[in-house]
Amino acid sequence: MISSKIKTHLKKMEQKKFRKEFLEFTIEGIKGVEEALKSDFDIALILIQANKRDDEDILKIINKANKKNIEIEYVGIKDLESISSTKTFPGVLAIVSQKEFYLDNFLKSDNIIILDKINDPGNLGTIIRTADWFGIDKIILSEDSVDIYNPKTIRSTMGSIFHIDILQVNNLEKVLDKFKQEKFIINAFTLNGEKIDNISKNKVNKNIFLFGSESHGLRSELEKKVDRSYTITGYGQAESLNLAISAGIIMNKIKN
Amino acid sequence: MISSKIKTHLKKMEQKKFRKEFLEFTIEGIKGVEEALKSDFDIALILIQANKRDDEDILKIINKANKKNIEIEYVGIKDLESISSTKTFPGVLAIVSQKEFYLDNFLKSDNIIILDKINDPGNLGTIIRTADWFGIDKIILSEDSVDIYNPKTIRSTMGSIFHIDILQVNNLEKVLDKFKQEKFIINAFTLNGEKIDNISKNKVNKNIFLFGSESHGLRSELEKKVDRSYTITGYGQAESLNLAISAGIIMNKIKN
Repeated sequence: MISSKIKTHLKKMEQKKFRKEFLEFTIEGIKGVEEALKSDFDIALILIQANKRDDEDILKIINKANKKNIEIEYVGIKDLESISSTKTFPGVLAIVSQKEFYLDNFLKSDNIIILDKINDPGNLGTIIRTADWFGIDKIILSEDSVDIYNPKTIRSTMGSIFHIDILQVNNLEKVLDKFKQEKFIINAFTLNGEKIDNISKNKVNKNIFLFGSESHGLRSELEKKVDRSYTITGYGQAESLNLAISAGIIMNKIKN
Repeated sequence: MISSKIKTHLKKMEQKKFRKEFLEFTIEGIKGVEEALKSDFDIALILIQANKRDDEDILKIINKANKKNIEIEYVGIKDLESISSTKTFPGVLAIVSQKEFYLDNFLKSDNIIILDKINDPGNLGTIIRTADWFGIDKIILSEDSVDIYNPKTIRSTMGSIFHIDILQVNNLEKVLDKFKQEKFIINAFTLNGEKIDNISKNKVNKNIFLFGSESHGLRSELEKKVDRSYTITGYGQAESLNLAISAGIIMNKIKN
């Protein structure tokens, strides 16, 4: 049985405002908790489904958590429903402290993805996972984007949330100006730019890859800052590509 | 007020077995219903939120439906909750007849995507939408894949469900054999194949692009049939790419 204090805390964590207040997020499932344990993120608490405590994967997690002096609570069947963000609790959950990232650090990087007003948590999670695959480890989001720590986002990162520096900023226009001062080139993706094949030959040392929102594309205020604009040529009847797919195709172009 | 007969029908349509029995599916939202009306799919019924009947987009739909002699029912606020697959009903819904596709037709095609045991409806919908963008209009799924007509799949196709021929087959191994007899090359995507850059130079006239399941990759029975195997090179810490992202990168490689 877990305490009602933990239950209330987890219930609150379903809301963005409390995640922001506590500066924490939750991650569920063996793979996710393993990645959390491997990372240098601070883990406040691990919850384990009591009747799974002898499972091989769970045992490994318990051992690792013990070594790192992380508190573990065991959860009875009755409490499972109230703690999981999915229908079936995957046996283990960790409450993790959010990490603080700084723009200065981003200015030293070569390739940065910037997302304006991204609103689909699954898309964001998939972009984080894809960036991690291609070794692009810096992402910036506008403040009005979906919350990075939304459980759906965290789930679809498949553990990559622990490998990427993600910064949410208030004024994307000013941030773009700062990057431009530091000799970054702003590459954007629109429906009427040059062919993306050119992206490799146009690439400079420091690149921003800027994406507009799923439904409205790039805001005109941001468009003004763009140095080069690219399009993924289509041949069929679809009006647009899914944002995460576009980002994936572009990351592959940049890296391969 | 809609009749309880329609309500019961829609309720049943939430289940795969009834969608299979009725050979129908539902599509919600203006964009989706517009695409349905533009297509040669038969529409059994259109439901419209009564207090939106004077909206410009809805009026266009009503006019087009009238021209095609499609029955329209108007739905009161009270009934909205019971008919939508999402939290907020987007004003319009169509019940559409499933179309029958035949393997013979696929054998005449150049590029075909085959998905084995795909289980995420969002991934399937996104792959359909992406194929439509790149002008690849034939997809085959194994029988144990997620239902094509799952509302989440339909939603994430963004209307592309009406542009692509999709066939669900019982015995994928036999189907692959048939394609091989017809001189198709089976290209698969695994974690230890050659670089995908080679795919353009290796491409022949008739190509199958075969993808295994999200969680288990390609089954060994199918692996035996593969002519060439490709990998999207990664540089980061992620263990794998999302299936729809891989498929998107590959479709772009094939077409651009």
